[in-house]
Order: sequence, then C-alpha cells, then structure tokens
Amino acid sequence: MKSIFIAFFGILIFSSFVFLQKKQRIVFFGDSITQAGVQPTGYITKLADLLKQKGLENNYELVGAGIGGNKVYDLYLRMEEDVLSKSPDLVVIWVGVNDVWHKRSSGTGTDADKFEKFYTAIIKKLQQKNIKIALCTPAAIGEKTDYTNELDGDLNKYSAIIRNLAQKNNCTLVDLRQAFLEYNLANNKENKESGILTTDRVHLNEKGNQFVAEEMMKALVNK
Amino acid sequence: MKSIFIAFFGILIFSSFVFLQKKQRIVFFGDSITQAGVQPTGYITKLADLLKQKGLENNYELVGAGIGGNKVYDLYLRMEEDVLSKSPDLVVIWVGVNDVWHKRSSGTGTDADKFEKFYTAIIKKLQQKNIKIALCTPAAIGEKTDYTNELDGDLNKYSAIIRNLAQKNNCTLVDLRQAFLEYNLANNKENKESGILTTDRVHLNEKGNQFVAEEMMKALVNK
Amino acid sequence: MKSIFIAFFGILIFSSFVFLQKKQRIVFFGDSITQAGVQPTGYITKLADLLKQKGLENNYELVGAGIGGNKVYDLYLRMEEDVLSKSPDLVVIWVGVNDVWHKRSSGTGTDADKFEKFYTAIIKKLQQKNIKIALCTPAAIGEKTDYTNELDGDLNKYSAIIRNLAQKNNCTLVDLRQAFLEYNLANNKENKESGILTTDRVHLNEKGNQFVAEEMMKALVNK
Amino acid sequence: MKSIFIAFFGILIFSSFVFLQKKQRIVFFGDSITQAGVQPTGYITKLADLLKQKGLENNYELVGAGIGGNKVYDLYLRMEEDVLSKSPDLVVIWVGVNDVWHKRSSGTGTDADKFEKFYTAIIKKLQQKNIKIALCTPAAIGEKTDYTNELDGDLNKYSAIIRNLAQKNNCTLVDLRQAFLEYNLANNKENKESGILTTDRVHLNEKGNQFVAEEMMKALVNK
Repeated sequence: MKSIFIAFFGILIFSSFVFLQKKQRIVFFGDSITQAGVQPTGYITKLADLLKQKGLENNYELVGAGIGGNKVYDLYLRMEEDVLSKSPDLVVIWVGVNDVWHKRSSGTGTDADKFEKFYTAIIKKLQQKNIKIALCTPAAIGEKTDYTNELDGDLNKYSAIIRNLAQKNNCTLVDLRQAFLEYNLANNKENKESGILTTDRVHLNEKGNQFVAEEMMKALVNK
Repeated sequence: MKSIFIAFFGILIFSSFVFLQKKQRIVFFGDSITQAGVQPTGYITKLADLLKQKGLENNYELVGAGIGGNKVYDLYLRMEEDVLSKSPDLVVIWVGVNDVWHKRSSGTGTDADKFEKFYTAIIKKLQQKNIKIALCTPAAIGEKTDYTNELDGDLNKYSAIIRNLAQKNNCTLVDLRQAFLEYNLANNKENKESGILTTDRVHLNEKGNQFVAEEMMKALVNK
Repeated sequence: MKSIFIAFFGILIFSSFVFLQKKQRIVFFGDSITQAGVQPTGYITKLADLLKQKGLENNYELVGAGIGGNKVYDLYLRMEEDVLSKSPDLVVIWVGVNDVWHKRSSGTGTDADKFEKFYTAIIKKLQQKNIKIALCTPAAIGEKTDYTNELDGDLNKYSAIIRNLAQKNNCTLVDLRQAFLEYNLANNKENKESGILTTDRVHLNEKGNQFVAEEMMKALVNK
Repeated sequence: MKSIFIAFFGILIFSSFVFLQKKQRIVFFGDSITQAGVQPTGYITKLADLLKQKGLENNYELVGAGIGGNKVYDLYLRMEEDVLSKSPDLVVIWVGVNDVWHKRSSGTGTDADKFEKFYTAIIKKLQQKNIKIALCTPAAIGEKTDYTNELDGDLNKYSAIIRNLAQKNNCTLVDLRQAFLEYNLANNKENKESGILTTDRVHLNEKGNQFVAEEMMKALVNK
C-alpha cells in the first residue's frame, strides 16, 4: 500500500515536473537575417544566452527557420513544412526587407497590397492552430539617420502595414525598425550607412545581433 | 409486371443517361485574360459555343476563375477557395504574363526559380486530388514578329519553364505562345505590336478570344 | 528753343527709364511641373502676378522652358537650344522628380552619381557665360508626412545632392522639398498623399502653384 | 647642282612618303567592353595585330575611349573631351548594352526614344566636323540561341534603332548583334548562356575579342 502511495506521488511529482518543464517552442520564421541568427554570434544564439543568464534555458526551445532571399509569399509557401510541422507555441515572423529591396535590385519585390494579403494568410493559418505570433518590422536597408536611405519611404510603408496587422490580429509587435532608428539617432552621429548595427546596411553585425536579441527578450519573454 | 419491367428499363436508361451526362467540370485558373474570358465574347464563352456546335454542351461545365493582375503565387494563395472548392475534373492554368511584365512595370514580377517553385506547388496540390491539369504558356506581350517585343526573351524563358513542367508532371500543354507566334508570322506582315490577336499587346481582341477557344478545343476536348 | 529743351529732357528721361527698365530675363528650366507653370494658373504666371503687385513687372521677363518627362540629362541635351539661345540673366533649374520616379515606373531613372555629374555640367556651362543660377530641390512624390511616401528616401538623397551643388557652386537655393515638407507638417494633418499642394502627389494644384510662386519670389527677387 | 637635285628628290620622296603615311586616327567610343578593348588581348589590340599582318600598321592609329557603365548619354556628355579633342578621322561608336541592362539591374536604363535622341545628337556633332562614323549594334546580353535570354527583345529593339540610324545618317554599320547571333547558332549547340564569345554573357572572352576585331576589320578597313 505504501509503495503504491509513493509510486502515485512519484508520478504526481514527475508529472508536475514535466508540466513545469514543458518548454515553449519558439520558431523564428524569416529571411537571411534569421538564417544567420542561428550562427554562433547570431541573434537567436544570443537570445538563448540571455535566457540562460536568467535561468530560463529550460523554459524555451528556440528554432531557426530562416532562408535567404525569402519574401512574405515564400514564407507562406513553406509554412506547413518548416513551421507547422514543428508544432511551435510561438512563431516570430520577421520579413519585409526583400519584399522592398528586390523591387529595385531585381524587379521582383512584393506589392504592398499583396504583402498584406499573404501576411494575413500566414497569421490566419497560425491562429487557427492557436499558435501565438510575434511580428517584427524590417529593421533597415541603410542606417543613415537623415532619411536619405534610398528605400526608407517604402520600408516605413511596409512597417506601418505590419504594425497595423499586429494590432488588428492581437499579435505581439517587435518594432525593430523603430528600435534601430532610435539607436542610430543616438549612436550614428556621423550618419553612416552601415557599420552601426549592420555590416552591409541590412545584415546584422555582432552589436546588431545582440541588440535584436535584447529587443526579442523584452518583447517575447515573461509577457 | 410489364409496367414494372418498363419502369426498370426506364430507370436503367435514365441512369445510364445521367452517367453519360456526367459533366466534366473545367476550371480556368488565371489572370485578367481569363477574367475577361467569361464575358460574352470571351474565350471561355466561345469555347462553350464550340462545344455546343459539336453537341457536347452537356459533357462539359466551364467555370472561370481569373483575377486581374494575378501572378503564379496569387494563384497558389487562392487555389483552395477558388478552385479546389469547386471540385474540378480539369484545371486549365494560364499564368505568366504578369510575372514577367510586372518586373518592368512595377518592380514586382516573379523570379524564374520562384515561378517554377510555386507552379510546381500548384500542380502537386491538384494531382494529390487526382485533378487533371492543362498548362498554358503566356501568349504575348507584344505581337511583333521580328523579336523586338521588349519582353520576348523573358517570356520565352518562362514559357520554356512551363513546357518543361508540363512534360515532367504529365500535364496537357496548350502552347499558346507558340500558336500566337505562328499565327502572327502568317498574319502580321506589317510587324504590328497589337491588333492582330490582342487589343493592347496582352489582352485578347475578339479574334484572339476565338483563336484561344479553338486552341483550347483542340487541346482539351476528346483527348 | 524751349521745345527743343523739353524734347531733349524727354529723351533723357525716356532713356533713363528704359535703362532702369532693363528687364532681367529669367528662364525656368525643368520638367512637366515647369511646362505647366506657364499655364493661366501655373507658378510662373503667378510669379508674374506677384511681381506686378509689387510694381516690378517691368523689371523681369519670365520665360518657361519645361518639357514633360525631362531628367537632368535631357536638360543638358537641350540647354543650348532652349536656354542659352535666349540669353538669360538667371536660370532657375528645377529637376529631379523623374530622375527618381522613373527608376520605379519604367526602369529608366538616373543614378545618383550621374545625376550630380550632369547637373554639374549644366552649372559649369551657365557659369562660363556669367549666367546666374538658382537650383530647386524636387518638391514631392507624395505628400504624406510620416515618411511613408515610397520614394521619400531617394528624393531626400537627390535633394541633398542639389543642396550641396548649390553651396559648392555659389548658386541660389530654392529648397522646395524642405518648404513642402514644412507646409505639409502644418497643413496635412490627415497624412494625405495628395491634395494639399499637389493634384497627384507630384504636379501642383492651384495652392501649390501659388506656394511655389511665393517661394520663388522670396528666393529670387530683391536679392 | 647634282647634290641639290638629289636633295630635292629626297624631299619629294620623303614628302610623298609622309603623305602616304598619313595615319587615319580611329577612336573607339564605348563602354566597359571597349575599355577592355585596349588590354593585351582586347579587340582593339587584336585589330592592331590584324592591320600589322596586312602591313597596314602605319595607315591607322587606334585609340580607345571606353568607360565602364557608359550609356548613350554618358558618351554625349564626354564626347568633347574624350573624342573631339583627339581629332579623329573615324569614330566607332559601340554602346547600348547598359542602356538596356540597367533597366533591370538598377532601374537606370535609357528609354528607347531618348536613346535615339542622344545617339542622333552624337552623330550630328561628329558629322558637323566631317568625322566619319561607324555604328555597332550591342552584341549580346546572354548567348543562348533559343531566344530565351531575358533581355533579347529589348536588345533587338535597340539594335533596330541603331541599324536605322546608320542608314538614315550614312554611317558604316558593324552589326555585331547579327554576327554574334549567327556565330552562336553555328557554334553554341548546347544553348549555353556564356562561354562562346563572352565570359559572362556580356564581356568578350579571347575568342570574342578576336571575332570582334575581325568584324571591325571587314567593316572599317579598305572601304
């Protein structure tokens, strides 16, 4: 009888332990910036470090799902295979730079109305499965602070679309564009086009990866 | 007894009639050219006329599913709602003009590799449901016959992708680009950029709608 | 004798009047905005009205030399025929919208370094003939005040080039971009993309023509 | 007396020799292809070799005036300094690839009507100075022979403009586009996009430089 009782308690404790330990799986869904995020100095790796510093490493499992050159419709095409198949609790979507940039670089960007349409379709599919969502605005194509980065206007337009989508669909917003702009206004006094948070106007340098990890930490953890 | 016998035969005849009459539902899936196809002088309407002339009007049901400005990824996005929901027996896909044209007109065309990727995804989804497929090459952006239509090279490239997809996936091919070129070589002696089969280099005039209906007839019916 | 004396004085007065009246010829050299400037409600016509209100109509002769679709290199090509041949005292150059806009609309904009090169060549040719020059920044492609006009970044970049050219070459600057932005910040509270100073994001409505005439008046007259 | 007579004859012979030796100065005016033409294996160097083989090295002086990235309006801008200042007898103009290509690669190509306008202005300026002119069509952006090079249509269009300009203005035509196409139809059986006459679809490999030198020889020498 006693042994049964102990066994019962053991199971109970174990169960609750497992329950407490149930890791929240976060999939980072994006383009080349996110593809690089799982590298040793990438923002996803750095976010894992930040979680560890707070003793939260057992609460979260971070999964990278970034592919270079991806636009919003590329995410839509591969979301079953690369995201839903991983049964995430939370999906962090960070896309938009290529949708704007490729208009100029190769004539194959994404129209603003189509951008919103595909983005909405992704959100709907995730919400149907009760997956939480965080939306990130595209950080930068150029770090100049005097509004002379060639694609600033269009990038602001697409960021406005994303902010609006976050609000309309009750998604967490990680407003990296705003955060980058404020950081550059404070720290890029020479109005340089890269080298502050990016290596090449778009992709993150180590400081940029750290900065994004911290912004993600603030927005995603303990909320 | 006799009346029962007759009734039985009646049912049998009626049943087989219904069976023979089982209409094949064809969904035409495409862009503005197909959107206009259901108009009184559109190619889908004209194809219905041709079927009627052959006494085949009860064998086929023709359904238009064209939306202006659509590119291959737009088809992918709406295929559940606009095509699969209609349980088609055959889907005729005609897309590509905007994928090429929008590169120049608005910086939002489709890269060739993405074009093939999304097209393949559409084919796979349809074939999983045992739906037959016919692929059409994009007919024209300009009818000049001396190879000086600005986008000829790219349109030929995307047509080659489609021909290859048809072969690889055992789909019927309606090679409208080839057919238009041959028609123009024979009938556009003045090397005009429009007015032969199109009104504006892209969209079909009445002759063009008739021509497409006939090409569809040859490719799709009694095969 | 008396009559001769009077006649002599008459001639003297008339001569000096003519001398004082030596009109300063101003040629407005630009694109479609300037082409429309000579219309009854255009900015050049309105500037003539302002001069008249100040009694200065005999001091200035205003000549329009705007052609729709012109970019900086089009101005360079036709400057002999359309500007130098008119022996101007002052040339007001207002160009840049098409150099930026045509990148997106037709793939035929002007690279920033080439823009500066051709602009410099125009300035040099005019200064060799001791013609005074005023440079205008491109006012707007969209009047939104939250920096989401698609081409804002590039337009700011080209405006910065022009401001720099004005300073380096001792030219008068008519900073219409700055003036339009300030006016819109004060008067476009609804963040509309057109209708404040433009009809269509680019071309001037009547208020816009009046506003430009006033800015020109401040910058060009009595300086 | 005899010595004077000999001296006189000597001068006479020397003079006529100098007269016969009066070199024809040919300036090659173009883009990066021509800039590379003066390299040890470039087409201008190879043309000099061909002239030497025929013992004509003293009859011609070949001068390179190519600058990478140049479009037709760049030629117009620098023609005084780089061409007229060299008092050429013949100018070989070879331009057009960037006018077409930059539409796609950077949104800064040249509209067809402007291309013709600037080209005409260059021809007029040279003909006013009685300088002979040879026009070359742009050879290739891609060497595929099945008309699927993306920019074939536009390149054919600009080549047609050049052929027409040559005829209208009595200029020699070096139809490199036609020559390249024929060569590729005969020698590029695998339909490769580069490696036959070009290294990278546009710039000449050694065989390409030799081929162009031979075409120039045929078109320019002893005519």
